[in-house]
Amino acid sequence: MTSPLRIGIAGLGTVGAAVARIVVEQGEALASRCGRPLVLAAVSSRDHAKDRGVSLEGAVWFPDLVKLARSASIDVFVELIGGEGDPARAAVSAALGRALPVVTANKALLAHHGVELALMAEEQRVSLNFEGAVAGGIPIIKALREGLAANKLARVYGILNGTCNYILTTMEASGRKFADVLAEAQRLGYAEADPTFDIGGMDTAHKLALLAAVAFGNAPALDGIHVEGIARITPHDIVFAREFGFRIKLLGVATRSDGGIELRVHPAMVPLGTPLADVDGVYNAVVAEGDLVGKSVYEGRGAGAGPTASAVISDILDIARGQQLSTFGTPAVKLKRPVIVPMGDHLGPCYLRFTVIDRPGVIAVISRCLADQAISIESMLQRSRAPGEAVPVVFITHEAREAELAKALQAIVAAGVVTEEPCMIRMERF
Amino acid sequence: MTSPLRIGIAGLGTVGAAVARIVVEQGEALASRCGRPLVLAAVSSRDHAKDRGVSLEGAVWFPDLVKLARSASIDVFVELIGGEGDPARAAVSAALGRALPVVTANKALLAHHGVELALMAEEQRVSLNFEGAVAGGIPIIKALREGLAANKLARVYGILNGTCNYILTTMEASGRKFADVLAEAQRLGYAEADPTFDIGGMDTAHKLALLAAVAFGNAPALDGIHVEGIARITPHDIVFAREFGFRIKLLGVATRSDGGIELRVHPAMVPLGTPLADVDGVYNAVVAEGDLVGKSVYEGRGAGAGPTASAVISDILDIARGQQLSTFGTPAVKLKRPVIVPMGDHLGPCYLRFTVIDRPGVIAVISRCLADQAISIESMLQRSRAPGEAVPVVFITHEAREAELAKALQAIVAAGVVTEEPCMIRMERF
Repeated sequence: MTSPLRIGIAGLGTVGAAVARIVVEQGEALASRCGRPLVLAAVSSRDHAKDRGVSLEGAVWFPDLVKLARSASIDVFVELIGGEGDPARAAVSAALGRALPVVTANKALLAHHGVELALMAEEQRVSLNFEGAVAGGIPIIKALREGLAANKLARVYGILNGTCNYILTTMEASGRKFADVLAEAQRLGYAEADPTFDIGGMDTAHKLALLAAVAFGNAPALDGIHVEGIARITPHDIVFAREFGFRIKLLGVATRSDGGIELRVHPAMVPLGTPLADVDGVYNAVVAEGDLVGKSVYEGRGAGAGPTASAVISDILDIARGQQLSTFGTPAVKLKRPVIVPMGDHLGPCYLRFTVIDRPGVIAVISRCLADQAISIESMLQRSRAPGEAVPVVFITHEAREAELAKALQAIVAAGVVTEEPCMIRMERF
Repeated sequence: MTSPLRIGIAGLGTVGAAVARIVVEQGEALASRCGRPLVLAAVSSRDHAKDRGVSLEGAVWFPDLVKLARSASIDVFVELIGGEGDPARAAVSAALGRALPVVTANKALLAHHGVELALMAEEQRVSLNFEGAVAGGIPIIKALREGLAANKLARVYGILNGTCNYILTTMEASGRKFADVLAEAQRLGYAEADPTFDIGGMDTAHKLALLAAVAFGNAPALDGIHVEGIARITPHDIVFAREFGFRIKLLGVATRSDGGIELRVHPAMVPLGTPLADVDGVYNAVVAEGDLVGKSVYEGRGAGAGPTASAVISDILDIARGQQLSTFGTPAVKLKRPVIVPMGDHLGPCYLRFTVIDRPGVIAVISRCLADQAISIESMLQRSRAPGEAVPVVFITHEAREAELAKALQAIVAAGVVTEEPCMIRMERF
């Protein structure tokens, strides 16, 4: 049998500790899978003494992860610290610079510095693997980079944030408001104390940037992504969506066309009966559309110690087997910044909810503003009546351009007929 | 750039022709994915002159595929002839015997001779890849063998035959009978002229044998699979299923327990709202349950030239990159025949449909026969009344052992109260 693969793990949070435990406890099964023993050779963490439910005996402790990355005692550097900047970036660079393969679950690092790091890795002919960075335990990077490698992919999209999906699923099941459900999710540990990154859509955007890079062979283009979060979704929207045959999901959508690449993250109406509509709770799902394969769907747990550790270890096993692929599936020297199709050019039907004072003439004003932009209306719904009070009114448009929709909404707000910002949710026809 | 990979394709049916066309026409994109050029060096087919929409110029033609497998002009042998025996078996053996990597979509060959061929491949340190043999374009072998390699899998199951799924979906949508829909599927090319292999469940059994081998690390155990087909499903069953909140799908299910491995292929009731229930038409889907990852689902087109070619080419690209894995994920020398849990020990709730003459006392006799085997009834349904004529009566049982169910059904038939063989459909609680 070949020499053991000596693993150095930086970061012993829940994922790091799970990876360490599996390497230590499932050694024989893993060796059988990759043809050589795996050894936990070194770790780096702030608090070495803390009990993590795994024996770290035999693993050298490095207080400084950059020193771990430079240590001669490891054959692969596993970065589970997170964060786009140092020390994660410095440590990963240090490892790659000395031709040490790297496994990371750090989506921010890859979304911001992916090309630079991929170039280093490929120059040194070592792997930089990041399966754990996107969609937890779903082997979606492997599927796109290897399994579907024969395809020209036209679109990749999905539910990429478990926190948002949990909140939306719970709002639908309970009829409760966003703020209530978020507070509960925080108590249960499904949402961070500062949830901005998740509920604002940035977490999904990081993951979408990486998925699109692998699917389309371009540099991750985080700043080209149109990003909206879920904070403005109300129980009204969820009920209306259901009536129209849809469910509301936070989606990341990347589409390739002749004009370039469209990248968007926002709440969307997904038709009932399609695979994404039934993805509940903390699950993630990704759909890839290829010229040969057609539509293929990948669903599983999007976060958590077990699923992410599963992804990280699969990356380690690939390295143990001697596999070395381009980080994003395409050689890093060929990764160009894509031409971004601006969101104003996006075409699609749309759900618009206005909060209006229930009095004659309001609907006429809104309808006029939409007509002025040549936006045609498929249906209109006002559920409750409360003369003189604020009520929600919903319009579903036919296919419309975002730029025109924005102008119409501006005009409606300027006309003084609404008491709150209008809520706009795009309707997908996947 | 490294030297080109010279491909030899045996079999130029729809899949073989698609693979040839993609290799010829998408050369640059494929080379970018795997780091070396792919060349269509040689082909073998019965009719060399036939127009297949692709230029075979430059590819040497071999009338005999075993000679192609022995040719010094190729670096990888792609077997797309099919069939468990010769010439496919002889050709694959010939290629492996001279340390030539092999790609095949031949499920019968692998299900029957997989261990023997894997041993040859691993002895010669070359790949024997078979992604195209299971679930068409879904990269499920890669997902199980690599993506989920860190997991101990407890169960793998799914919809693996597009013909059956198309027939069941169409029966549900149209209310028509099995024989009608099968005849239509044959006209449309969704079913073979002799459909026995698909509708009888054997095609699913071959695929399940391979999935279970990769998931659990044992030898493919085709003869350990309990196999039933869909020919006895009636529109009544589909309507009753819906009323109880289920849809009927032909499933392959492999479960690992302390007692061994349970392998079964049969029509099953799948709860509405779970991922498999919504898999329609010619789509396939596979669910894998792992200790780390939990439940993960993979869905896509299960057959056809494009999806299967996508899988075959991904296997070729892995070989072009120099990757060499154990055929079934576990070294072939360790592949043992699993202990099979007999179907009589299977436990689960069950749907039983009896065709009875509508007269007093019949229900009492059936209920007594079930009670005699300690099978308890959850519900009973007789939809239509037609005194003195044959009507369907349905019982849903609580959890019951197959052996007891079989005894009860024997007693019911012996009691002379039914006019046809009872129809039994297992209810799954995934």
